[in-house]
Amino acid sequence: MSMHQDTPLVGVIMGSDSDLPVMQAAAEILDELRVAHELSIVSAHRTPKRLFTYAEQAAERGLRVIIAGAGGAAHLPGMIAAITPLPVIGVPVKSAALSGQDSLLSIVQMPAGVPVATVAIDGAKNAGLLAAQILGTADLELRQRVQHYKERLEAQVLTKAQRVEAGEITADTVRAARGVG
Amino acid sequence: MSMHQDTPLVGVIMGSDSDLPVMQAAAEILDELRVAHELSIVSAHRTPKRLFTYAEQAAERGLRVIIAGAGGAAHLPGMIAAITPLPVIGVPVKSAALSGQDSLLSIVQMPAGVPVATVAIDGAKNAGLLAAQILGTADLELRQRVQHYKERLEAQVLTKAQRVEAGEITADTVRAARGVG
Amino acid sequence: MSMHQDTPLVGVIMGSDSDLPVMQAAAEILDELRVAHELSIVSAHRTPKRLFTYAEQAAERGLRVIIAGAGGAAHLPGMIAAITPLPVIGVPVKSAALSGQDSLLSIVQMPAGVPVATVAIDGAKNAGLLAAQILGTADLELRQRVQHYKERLEAQVLTKAQRVEAGEITADTVRAARGVG
Amino acid sequence: MSMHQDTPLVGVIMGSDSDLPVMQAAAEILDELRVAHELSIVSAHRTPKRLFTYAEQAAERGLRVIIAGAGGAAHLPGMIAAITPLPVIGVPVKSAALSGQDSLLSIVQMPAGVPVATVAIDGAKNAGLLAAQILGTADLELRQRVQHYKERLEAQVLTKAQRVEAGEITADTVRAARGVG
Amino acid sequence: MSMHQDTPLVGVIMGSDSDLPVMQAAAEILDELRVAHELSIVSAHRTPKRLFTYAEQAAERGLRVIIAGAGGAAHLPGMIAAITPLPVIGVPVKSAALSGQDSLLSIVQMPAGVPVATVAIDGAKNAGLLAAQILGTADLELRQRVQHYKERLEAQVLTKAQRVEAGEITADTVRAARGVG
Amino acid sequence: MSMHQDTPLVGVIMGSDSDLPVMQAAAEILDELRVAHELSIVSAHRTPKRLFTYAEQAAERGLRVIIAGAGGAAHLPGMIAAITPLPVIGVPVKSAALSGQDSLLSIVQMPAGVPVATVAIDGAKNAGLLAAQILGTADLELRQRVQHYKERLEAQVLTKAQRVEAGEITADTVRAARGVG
Amino acid sequence: MSMHQDTPLVGVIMGSDSDLPVMQAAAEILDELRVAHELSIVSAHRTPKRLFTYAEQAAERGLRVIIAGAGGAAHLPGMIAAITPLPVIGVPVKSAALSGQDSLLSIVQMPAGVPVATVAIDGAKNAGLLAAQILGTADLELRQRVQHYKERLEAQVLTKAQRVEAGEITADTVRAARGVG
Amino acid sequence: MSMHQDTPLVGVIMGSDSDLPVMQAAAEILDELRVAHELSIVSAHRTPKRLFTYAEQAAERGLRVIIAGAGGAAHLPGMIAAITPLPVIGVPVKSAALSGQDSLLSIVQMPAGVPVATVAIDGAKNAGLLAAQILGTADLELRQRVQHYKERLEAQVLTKAQRVEAGEITADTVRAARGVG
Repeated sequence: MSMHQDTPLVGVIMGSDSDLPVMQAAAEILDELRVAHELSIVSAHRTPKRLFTYAEQAAERGLRVIIAGAGGAAHLPGMIAAITPLPVIGVPVKSAALSGQDSLLSIVQMPAGVPVATVAIDGAKNAGLLAAQILGTADLELRQRVQHYKERLEAQVLTKAQRVEAGEITADTVRAARGVG
Repeated sequence: MSMHQDTPLVGVIMGSDSDLPVMQAAAEILDELRVAHELSIVSAHRTPKRLFTYAEQAAERGLRVIIAGAGGAAHLPGMIAAITPLPVIGVPVKSAALSGQDSLLSIVQMPAGVPVATVAIDGAKNAGLLAAQILGTADLELRQRVQHYKERLEAQVLTKAQRVEAGEITADTVRAARGVG
Repeated sequence: MSMHQDTPLVGVIMGSDSDLPVMQAAAEILDELRVAHELSIVSAHRTPKRLFTYAEQAAERGLRVIIAGAGGAAHLPGMIAAITPLPVIGVPVKSAALSGQDSLLSIVQMPAGVPVATVAIDGAKNAGLLAAQILGTADLELRQRVQHYKERLEAQVLTKAQRVEAGEITADTVRAARGVG
Repeated sequence: MSMHQDTPLVGVIMGSDSDLPVMQAAAEILDELRVAHELSIVSAHRTPKRLFTYAEQAAERGLRVIIAGAGGAAHLPGMIAAITPLPVIGVPVKSAALSGQDSLLSIVQMPAGVPVATVAIDGAKNAGLLAAQILGTADLELRQRVQHYKERLEAQVLTKAQRVEAGEITADTVRAARGVG
Repeated sequence: MSMHQDTPLVGVIMGSDSDLPVMQAAAEILDELRVAHELSIVSAHRTPKRLFTYAEQAAERGLRVIIAGAGGAAHLPGMIAAITPLPVIGVPVKSAALSGQDSLLSIVQMPAGVPVATVAIDGAKNAGLLAAQILGTADLELRQRVQHYKERLEAQVLTKAQRVEAGEITADTVRAARGVG
Repeated sequence: MSMHQDTPLVGVIMGSDSDLPVMQAAAEILDELRVAHELSIVSAHRTPKRLFTYAEQAAERGLRVIIAGAGGAAHLPGMIAAITPLPVIGVPVKSAALSGQDSLLSIVQMPAGVPVATVAIDGAKNAGLLAAQILGTADLELRQRVQHYKERLEAQVLTKAQRVEAGEITADTVRAARGVG
Repeated sequence: MSMHQDTPLVGVIMGSDSDLPVMQAAAEILDELRVAHELSIVSAHRTPKRLFTYAEQAAERGLRVIIAGAGGAAHLPGMIAAITPLPVIGVPVKSAALSGQDSLLSIVQMPAGVPVATVAIDGAKNAGLLAAQILGTADLELRQRVQHYKERLEAQVLTKAQRVEAGEITADTVRAARGVG
Repeated sequence: MSMHQDTPLVGVIMGSDSDLPVMQAAAEILDELRVAHELSIVSAHRTPKRLFTYAEQAAERGLRVIIAGAGGAAHLPGMIAAITPLPVIGVPVKSAALSGQDSLLSIVQMPAGVPVATVAIDGAKNAGLLAAQILGTADLELRQRVQHYKERLEAQVLTKAQRVEAGEITADTVRAARGVG
């Protein structure tokens, strides 16, 4: 049974479909952690009415957390946060000219009264994880799945550490895996 | 007869009354150039409904240009521009930590389809002038008032140039006038 | 009948022909919105006399708005604005070393008395739209064409939103359309 | 009965007591929203063992969210997040030389797998609000208190807007209230 | 006999009399090195005609080097350099919001074909020295005066080094001399 | 006999195996200068316990210097330095969005009491050299090997200078050697 | 018996006596850790010969580490490092216009072959500590003094943590101690 | 007869042969303007003795201007300027991680007493032109050659302006000429 058949708890939205290759990582980690979610486009600048409707109905539709990704003068996360009482996670998407420095400042520098939980530039995976952690504050099983995810990460790094120490992973093998070597 | 009794053509709005000492310069130059205007507070983040109403009604209320000032994650100008077909001038207000670099990028880096005419950090006077220039594209008298304003500026600088060359204005007199000398 | 046969209302100029691939977007949107315009090269640094002549004659030639694009120490928009009473829109062109951060600051940080309406780095399309909005302050039909343009944008995003929700647009289809997938 | 007698749900920690004037705002808004919390000093660099103990015991002690403020090479939020499965909110504290740009990047640019929910530079009040929003995902009453808080903010701005329009608040009264006028 | 009675070889100009406290240092070092110079105001943005006249006549009036200081979107040095074949030295004046980062980039990032010899932010003294070095390329006596100036600087530092080593200059004496100690 | 059979004096660690292509240069120069070292992965964020263990045991295991490379919110060098009394050298690894500006500030801006000896972005070779210089403070032979290394560098540049002067190395030969010419 | 009577092991130098209020912290911590040192002025730009002599003689005079502080285009640490085989620690001193961003980049971004161990802007205390750690690689007693220093820091923070938890240290007491409260 | 057989008046030096593709433009424009020059490698960090000798002998060898290009912590121009009384032109070479922002600040932010005439990042052509302008202050023929060069630039741009207006140069032809179209 797919997560998508449950009432979504997390809304993953972005300003443009061109943000999908970045934002998909949020959906994937939510899938992995078995958190029901939905995925859509909401543009603060091109569909301002949809922005309002989405934000106003989010809580009553059952959403508990909203993840919003945007680039440049990235107003989507902050405007969603202005309207809904739900926690909003902002993902600054890397921009063409300024590499996401504009996106980051537009999202994180919110005025008192309207927080946006900002993650790293292009940090959609962490946005998904953070949403799971937020829901995990009242869902012990989910918190444990997050904990297990962290343990798997740790185990992977420990294995790699051993392989580096054994000379099995080297600068050359890393470059080769990137297709540069 | 005061300008304020005419139907305002320019709406000067800002996110917070703390922006008034900066934004007042826009109103003053509009007064000087005899352009009817109104002044108010509209916060994108704290009064999102008012933002929508203001932007949606602006054109039918007779406004022709909107000047919007905001600091930090400055969403006001861009969100007004998302809703109204009128030209919107954005004034990045200097912010506490980042000196307005965040305000500037949040206002100027708008996506294709939704321009904001951005002026300098704390450049409210220029926002007022620009509004007059915009209205002057269809109002020859106003354009001439703008032209005369530019000529007065030029004359003032030429006089100062003569006084510097004559040694009447010096670094010391400038410092003294600032109350530092 | 082409727009180009009418007296141009908007002058689109740039410092170098190498800026054409960026600045062409301004001309295209003006075409789409049926605003008569002209396109040329004026270099503040290499053709300073032409700069003066162009700016001094702009209003009497019938231009109502000037769009000026430049990169690096981008003096063209500000110097045009110093001479003409017409509104000037500045387009910071992305530069080789500093990605347009120099262009942006050189254009937007104008002193009091001489505004330049600055748009995003490489934001020539928005410069064209802004020129149309400016002319639309006294041309209700043009304002409606701008309004319809905004509505078409909105409709396009709403359609994409549905297709993302239906799984028809995914990260993979976006990447494929970019020729990366 | 004070909130402090309840088991704290939010831990508010900071790297140094010199951060207290900034971080106190987090505690104040949590008080206002009646969320039990604790306040202490944990330095990643000077008390690394305490950092580990604090982070490892946080969940079992009943904490549900951790707010961590730090300046400069601000490692506290990220290291807490490395250890606990709870959501961690990071507050970049304005630093002496770089105004918090270092603090912001050190906190927000976390690698995949370990999110920190970052708020604005010196944005401790928003950190407190965000913690309440997070707990509100499973506590309808708290969510309503957050909603009422937002409504009070809105009402305050609407009142100020009226007073600005009525000329009761002006640039002069704002400056005077700051002790500058 | 004052230097000022000779035909000036160096023109020291600035965009506004508010730049005098910074730019005066250029005149002072030129006085010290006995290089005839003149001092005036030329604003690229407020007196564009004067800019043209000044730059076009500079060489025939006998000027050999021009020092131009400006802040913000600092177009003065670059526009002077666009018109005259003389070497132009640009002084980025520290600006209110961006501390001269805008001034520096607007002055130094000139396109190929039109160099401006840029010195440090507020570096007017070095602009004067550089003008002397430039004239010294064909004036052996002047070059020697520059050389002696450098030797005096060196001697001063060597003396201070000895006094620091002897404990006669300490952090406390430095602070006291600043009026802070 | 390989250096690796000796007790390592320098620990070269990094946050991820993706840093190996950068960090390998530290190991190579240590090999060249015959300083025994070890190479491994320690992630502050994914393996915090390993971080503690590594740092706590470093001195007693015989390490004398630790080189730590990391990118983004680069906490590894600072956290190692928080725990061990050994000198820690930090290598800011170039990051995807911000080119290592985040890595640099996260590593260098340490609070008083916990220094990290920071080298240039991607400056792993210099980190290795610095480790050798540090060990060379008590090992005259090693200091001489460092000295000879510097002399070889000098000789190489002197040879290249001669070849450039003789026209044997030109812009074209350099481009060709890069595979661009 | 004063440390200053021993042969100095650490040379603490700076470009100007105006850097003394910052750099004195290096000398103080070296005093506290009982490391013999000397203090002087060496200006790369004003006393280049002294720079050469100082760097060339440093090792033979018995120095083991050099700490060099400088601001702006801070060349002192890098030029010392170019000449001596000893480890050089660079302290970027906060500059007037750019707050030390120029100093930091000028010091840390050294080319391969010539490392400078860079600490935080104005981080002279950490420079002194780092010098002690470097000498401690071959001096177990010194390493223990460094270790004890770290333990005292930890104890101080633990005490403050208790006092914050007990409500004895508050935002108000911190502000009062700063003379602001 | 080649210019290179005359006594060189301009020394063009750079820190590494990898800077040749950038710095060659200085030599080319000097060739075009018939200014005798020499080209070589001088590394401040790898050949400090050569740096001293080069700078100390420059004037007596007949050089009148020195052009120095360097990247990263770019100390070459400033150190040459510290030693010679000749004017020194600095070319910040674009760097790998920071795109020349480090090079620019390291070169331009010189302390009072030691100016470096800084041009744009990778602005070697302008460095050559500036050297010609400097020598032209005492060489009327050279000044005229510079003037003619400027006139040729102007004529080229005027021709391109006509061709753009005639539709002969378009965004497509520009892209095609770049090999992108």
